[in-house]
Amino acid sequence: MTPRIYLAGPDVFLPAPEAWAARKKALCAAHGLEGVAPLDPAPGLASGAAAPPGLAAWQAIAAANEAHIRSCDALIANLTPFRGPSADPGTVFELGFMRALGRPVFGYAVEEKRFAERSRIFLGAQAKRDGAGIWRDAAGMAIEDFGLWDNLMIEAAILASGGVLITASAADRGDDLAVFARCVQAAATRLGG
Amino acid sequence: MTPRIYLAGPDVFLPAPEAWAARKKALCAAHGLEGVAPLDPAPGLASGAAAPPGLAAWQAIAAANEAHIRSCDALIANLTPFRGPSADPGTVFELGFMRALGRPVFGYAVEEKRFAERSRIFLGAQAKRDGAGIWRDAAGMAIEDFGLWDNLMIEAAILASGGVLITASAADRGDDLAVFARCVQAAATRLGG
Repeated sequence: MTPRIYLAGPDVFLPAPEAWAARKKALCAAHGLEGVAPLDPAPGLASGAAAPPGLAAWQAIAAANEAHIRSCDALIANLTPFRGPSADPGTVFELGFMRALGRPVFGYAVEEKRFAERSRIFLGAQAKRDGAGIWRDAAGMAIEDFGLWDNLMIEAAILASGGVLITASAADRGDDLAVFARCVQAAATRLGG
Repeated sequence: MTPRIYLAGPDVFLPAPEAWAARKKALCAAHGLEGVAPLDPAPGLASGAAAPPGLAAWQAIAAANEAHIRSCDALIANLTPFRGPSADPGTVFELGFMRALGRPVFGYAVEEKRFAERSRIFLGAQAKRDGAGIWRDAAGMAIEDFGLWDNLMIEAAILASGGVLITASAADRGDDLAVFARCVQAAATRLGG
């Protein structure tokens, strides 16, 4: 069986998400893996009950994505920061979901700075060191700083699951697919694709 | 058995997180529930293998939190937007994690605006409508707008799990605990606490 990889990421918000997903799937196929995109027809609904009538569009999307994740052997998350210091929240939700299933989760990101620095930049003048040297925001909430890429739950889940996090610096984000391809290679090695 | 509720949220970044968690736990106890805070001693590591030697501090925190979540019957997430349009990513990860376990997830937030408006404000002049009337950022990525509180995976998971999302407007965030208490009440009703 070809290992199935769920392709989590804010890529679904691109102007032509299906075409973009096709490029990602081709890279997966080149490494012996089957890429599964969020916008693919829902598998779980076909193998299980019919979609409950009366589901709103957004509920149907979520149900399909959860079914996709359950149908996959691993997940690759696009963790490039999205409208703030952290990754897209839908992607982070899905990464946590797959982590709870006990399957490998991988991540990639194209960005220069780490989480603590991104958080300080986001907060601007509001970020101040307390007496113990800890950076805090105006509400006194600490800036997490373990030298990681994003919130510790994300990177710890990737490592504990046997996945890898691949990050790259780039003046722009045009290298997304090259970095994704490195992540696919790592997943293929891990899964024997 | 008293139902156990994992208390997810960026509350761990407060200056005195244990004292704050104690207040949340007292509200849980008043509703017949046992609140479990991220900073509590890890339960899973006691019932399973010892913490693997050589774990970094952040890995031990993540392992403890995952064990806490697995030990609980439900989760209440503080979804007040955190340094950007969306909730704290660690909290979103944990909500996705518990959702995959199939147990009820609840959320609360104190904030005036919904996700699409918060995203547009965050993007500022970069947000523009395309020919179809869809708001997009400078990279062409759409602003999700289903009239929801945050990314659709979050709200859909809460509803599908049998939980509730309770939001409140407030000029400041001083009402956090009152809104949290309403969420605890809803969880107690659901769980029979």
